[in-house]
Amino acid sequence: MQTNTAGIDTVNILENMDIKNTTVGIVGLGLIGGSLGLDFRRRGLRVLGVSRSPLTCDAALDRGAVDQASDDLSLLQQAEVIFICTPIAAITATVRALLTYITPETILTDVGSVKEQVIQEVLPLGARFVGGHPMAGTAESGIRAAQEGLFINAPYILTPVASTPPESVAMVASLVELLKAKLYFTSPQDHDRAVSLISHLPVMISASLINTCNQQGNNIALSLAQNLASSGFRDTSRVGGGNPELGLMMAQYNRPALLDSLGQYQESLQHIITLIETENWPELQKMLEITQATRPNFLR
Amino acid sequence: MQTNTAGIDTVNILENMDIKNTTVGIVGLGLIGGSLGLDFRRRGLRVLGVSRSPLTCDAALDRGAVDQASDDLSLLQQAEVIFICTPIAAITATVRALLTYITPETILTDVGSVKEQVIQEVLPLGARFVGGHPMAGTAESGIRAAQEGLFINAPYILTPVASTPPESVAMVASLVELLKAKLYFTSPQDHDRAVSLISHLPVMISASLINTCNQQGNNIALSLAQNLASSGFRDTSRVGGGNPELGLMMAQYNRPALLDSLGQYQESLQHIITLIETENWPELQKMLEITQATRPNFLR
Repeated sequence: MQTNTAGIDTVNILENMDIKNTTVGIVGLGLIGGSLGLDFRRRGLRVLGVSRSPLTCDAALDRGAVDQASDDLSLLQQAEVIFICTPIAAITATVRALLTYITPETILTDVGSVKEQVIQEVLPLGARFVGGHPMAGTAESGIRAAQEGLFINAPYILTPVASTPPESVAMVASLVELLKAKLYFTSPQDHDRAVSLISHLPVMISASLINTCNQQGNNIALSLAQNLASSGFRDTSRVGGGNPELGLMMAQYNRPALLDSLGQYQESLQHIITLIETENWPELQKMLEITQATRPNFLR
Repeated sequence: MQTNTAGIDTVNILENMDIKNTTVGIVGLGLIGGSLGLDFRRRGLRVLGVSRSPLTCDAALDRGAVDQASDDLSLLQQAEVIFICTPIAAITATVRALLTYITPETILTDVGSVKEQVIQEVLPLGARFVGGHPMAGTAESGIRAAQEGLFINAPYILTPVASTPPESVAMVASLVELLKAKLYFTSPQDHDRAVSLISHLPVMISASLINTCNQQGNNIALSLAQNLASSGFRDTSRVGGGNPELGLMMAQYNRPALLDSLGQYQESLQHIITLIETENWPELQKMLEITQATRPNFLR
């Protein structure tokens, strides 16, 4: 285990578990759900998959991502741990729908990229829920893009809260360790703050760059800019030119943390502008030396 | 010729030129100067190179980038066109030093990445000067990094002004075409405005991102951010974590255009923040759809 800020003694708890005989349920058989299924089955676990689309169920069976598949949640009655791999907007409704079929001992976990809001919605429902966020992916999506080993060395964050039973956390953690992911524990708030900085803020500042260039009123300079843009623009604008639904989801579900990060970003930007306005070149150089020296801290 | 916004009839002028017998001088035998030498020599032109460092002169001869090399500018008495490939800060002083050796017909051109300030400094000196900016490079620098074909399909902008003799522009343009670069003509102001948007602005907003993350006061979130940062952060922070001297040079030499671009960027960013604050999701989605749709316009 890489980090255990929650101080949960998973090793002792796991000694009493027989993880290999666990039946895992997966709701949502896309890139993440499908890849989880492939890895769990390879490790010998039984995997039951649910998708709203019968075609996706067939594809998941074809790919070997599930032992059984259905478009009906009742299939998951036999599952001990259920991974909810739907879009964030559907997580709470999925938990609610599952309550009809599961036992009080069934453990639920999700893979959403924002945690605080989902956990606040799910907690009152009374299920054994452990928030999770595997930070793995590809440019592709859907069951066809699922792949074995997707989570190897990728961060996988669990966000237990005070009321989460330690046994539930330990069970999900032990499944995550089967994936060979790097496991982290943190609070939902710290998780959302961290991803607002390193994932959601870059999307917004990158989109603002594209907007600024588009709004250039001088047509010759705009046309020239379009022709001259090279790798610096390409890299800095990449995430701002990505999937609009993803950017929207970040803003909707991580709004308070993202607004905090954006406010702090405005201050950093104003500091650079002031240095340039006042021609304070020694301080600007010092600042650029610090950004050069510290960037590798974020690229471990 | 790709674009000719200056309306100069280079084709007719060039019919009267014997470009293959031109002697080219190069001051500054680094990546750009050395690569120019390699390409011009391969095309059969005679190349005379000057570097302050005798070791660099030897290396340029070894590499075949020059026919003759010296640490003394007097070598360039025989050159008809001289490419000044020094850092921006040394261009004006180099032109002044060359005046002792050149004839009134000698054409000077530079390769600096900012044009207006240099041209304002050089014009009063009375030399035949054509501002130039080849947008090619590698992560390496120095004569050892010089390579044949570096400029193929790369933009090469010339920035003649009203007083620049058309014959001088045509001569430099014909040499640029030997490099198989994409030739553009524009005013120094439009050039500086365009590069402020697509090259210098990205450095400052990217550096501000790194600063914002560094200044995160919550230590757990900071540590988590450092561990979780993935390709989105990596790409958006790349140019802000680059060479500090380069970023400083952009701010010093392109200050007015860069401050304009930064001001417009602040407005774009505030617009996104307002959309998120007011939960105006339809407008945020529309905006992210526009940035997704328009980014390819800058990646031709």
